Amino acid sequence: MTPSWWLAPCKPIDTQVLEQAHARQQQLTKPAGSLGQLESVAVQLAGLQGQVKPNLDRVWIAIFAGDHGVVAEGVSAFPQEVTGQMLHNFVNGGAAISVLARQLGASLEVVDLGTVTPSLDLPGVRHLNIGPGTANFVLGPAMTQVQGELAMQAGRDSVLRAVATGVQLFIGGEMGIGNTTAASALACALLDCPVMHLTGPGTGLNAAGVSHKAQVIERALAMHTAQRGDALQTLFNLGGFEMAALVGAYLACAQEGVAVLVDGFICSVAALVAVRLNPDCRQWLVFGHRGAEPGHRHVLETLGAEPLLDLGLRLGEGSGAALAVPLLRLACDLHGQMATFAEAAVADRPA
Amino acid sequence: MTPSWWLAPCKPIDTQVLEQAHARQQQLTKPAGSLGQLESVAVQLAGLQGQVKPNLDRVWIAIFAGDHGVVAEGVSAFPQEVTGQMLHNFVNGGAAISVLARQLGASLEVVDLGTVTPSLDLPGVRHLNIGPGTANFVLGPAMTQVQGELAMQAGRDSVLRAVATGVQLFIGGEMGIGNTTAASALACALLDCPVMHLTGPGTGLNAAGVSHKAQVIERALAMHTAQRGDALQTLFNLGGFEMAALVGAYLACAQEGVAVLVDGFICSVAALVAVRLNPDCRQWLVFGHRGAEPGHRHVLETLGAEPLLDLGLRLGEGSGAALAVPLLRLACDLHGQMATFAEAAVADRPA
Repeated sequence: MTPSWWLAPCKPIDTQVLEQAHARQQQLTKPAGSLGQLESVAVQLAGLQGQVKPNLDRVWIAIFAGDHGVVAEGVSAFPQEVTGQMLHNFVNGGAAISVLARQLGASLEVVDLGTVTPSLDLPGVRHLNIGPGTANFVLGPAMTQVQGELAMQAGRDSVLRAVATGVQLFIGGEMGIGNTTAASALACALLDCPVMHLTGPGTGLNAAGVSHKAQVIERALAMHTAQRGDALQTLFNLGGFEMAALVGAYLACAQEGVAVLVDGFICSVAALVAVRLNPDCRQWLVFGHRGAEPGHRHVLETLGAEPLLDLGLRLGEGSGAALAVPLLRLACDLHGQMATFAEAAVADRPA
Repeated sequence: MTPSWWLAPCKPIDTQVLEQAHARQQQLTKPAGSLGQLESVAVQLAGLQGQVKPNLDRVWIAIFAGDHGVVAEGVSAFPQEVTGQMLHNFVNGGAAISVLARQLGASLEVVDLGTVTPSLDLPGVRHLNIGPGTANFVLGPAMTQVQGELAMQAGRDSVLRAVATGVQLFIGGEMGIGNTTAASALACALLDCPVMHLTGPGTGLNAAGVSHKAQVIERALAMHTAQRGDALQTLFNLGGFEMAALVGAYLACAQEGVAVLVDGFICSVAALVAVRLNPDCRQWLVFGHRGAEPGHRHVLETLGAEPLLDLGLRLGEGSGAALAVPLLRLACDLHGQMATFAEAAVADRPA
């Protein structure tokens, strides 16, 4: 295999700063450990940013959208034209992620990898036209190697634009009717796990719909079983353009030294692919939330991820990660601004 | 019993607005229910505020502090003078809640009900001097009826000051070395529950310390068993000044029509007392987080509460509630600002 950009080394964490940040946490005026997960995540961000007092003023949210050929099998509660309609909604400010990005003061970039409406030309959307959605992966590979590499590069390009603005946190979001089917198939192949463990209602299938979706995934897995050991090829066989873009984005973040806040089920499956391709990227990933899609829990456990939120979300768009941003910011504020026992003349517990 | 202010009726919820807010949620451009708990809490806040699009710009945080006579039994990892030292830290801006209040743009009020350092006179702190801490409740009632009612009134007074500023959300916090012992004792008495189920490490006891704490609570419960059926008297027997203030504050919020965001274990026990005294107050209570103190889960279940966060927090000071404020604000922003399917010309799922 030719060495490819995504296999290049990830940036190492600054372990000296990590230790300094850990020591600082122990001196703040609170019982040790009493801020729970917010302590560890502040220390982690310090190590990632190479600053004892990290901050997250500049957040970049990139939404990657693509359509899915497998929708022909009747696996989604929503019609496929919604993907394109939602692109419009993203840039017009009416979608959940648009509201969240505005409130957070985050940059929002919308990248259309390829939908069933190739004529779309929406101001504010980057239309890449990699294909009119993926092919139906029950019948063959979802995408070609060329398409897959273009999509991964599109994710990396977004990160490079973010880096040029001095970004401190990258959130990838996704939109694509049918994409929980692709994500479930991909996760089943990578984890060698029973289909029913990783298949759920997505945007709102009933029990019969979930059962049909699982059968479609079984057929897809049978079709592509020979290449299961190859994570990249499995991504191209069973994934979507938006997932390939997320994989590229996460790996580029780890290489460029930008902390990632991973969103829900689909993004976590993309994170799993990224970790399989280049394991050192794992330490650059913070997980925003545990979603309602049943397979998400399983993927998070595999990744050893402890997400910040658990609110029964199942929207996608990067929304769950965006909702966790204020918590991360407050974790940094607490870490950076609280007084130490010595500064405040407060008695620490006896040793 | 003479009718007392805390038994006066709570403000009814605006059910018409509640229905309108629910209908609006169904029309927003997302799969129905996909924002999980954030949908229901936005609808609840709409009903409480009587506005289809609620908002939480004006947040009031009141920290109630008091010392505990039961500390003489050796139940805390920290020395008792920390209560007074932390009052200083609150108003000087170095405590966790000081940082959080600043970042949230919330008003922060610090009320000292009575500590072991009665000479304290700190600028920015309201010193009420109800007593030099409570009495040791292993030997007798923690406080007199007069002290208890003064503390409850102090909570109500804080709410009335908040209402005068047009507050939209009230957070009560607490500080008091030894107060998880009091809260555990109070919860055991109210829930008639084994002491070990509701007793935990507090700010950091080891296993032997927790065991000793449980024995102290057993002795206290035996001492006050005759009055277990009377929630108010049980509060005065086993509670703390800061808990009585919280009970008064929560009931006053429900009467004045101000939504409450309840913090951790101690605040949830105060909420339990408030609900026992005047059950209609329950609907005015939103729960911020599930903390690390083992008894908290049990109290939350009893109250049918579904907190927003679960981050292993065990600091108190109102910090867990404060950390949940951005989530509530974003829930309101999403509810109020997202486009409807009709506005955005996005296809809803077929009926």
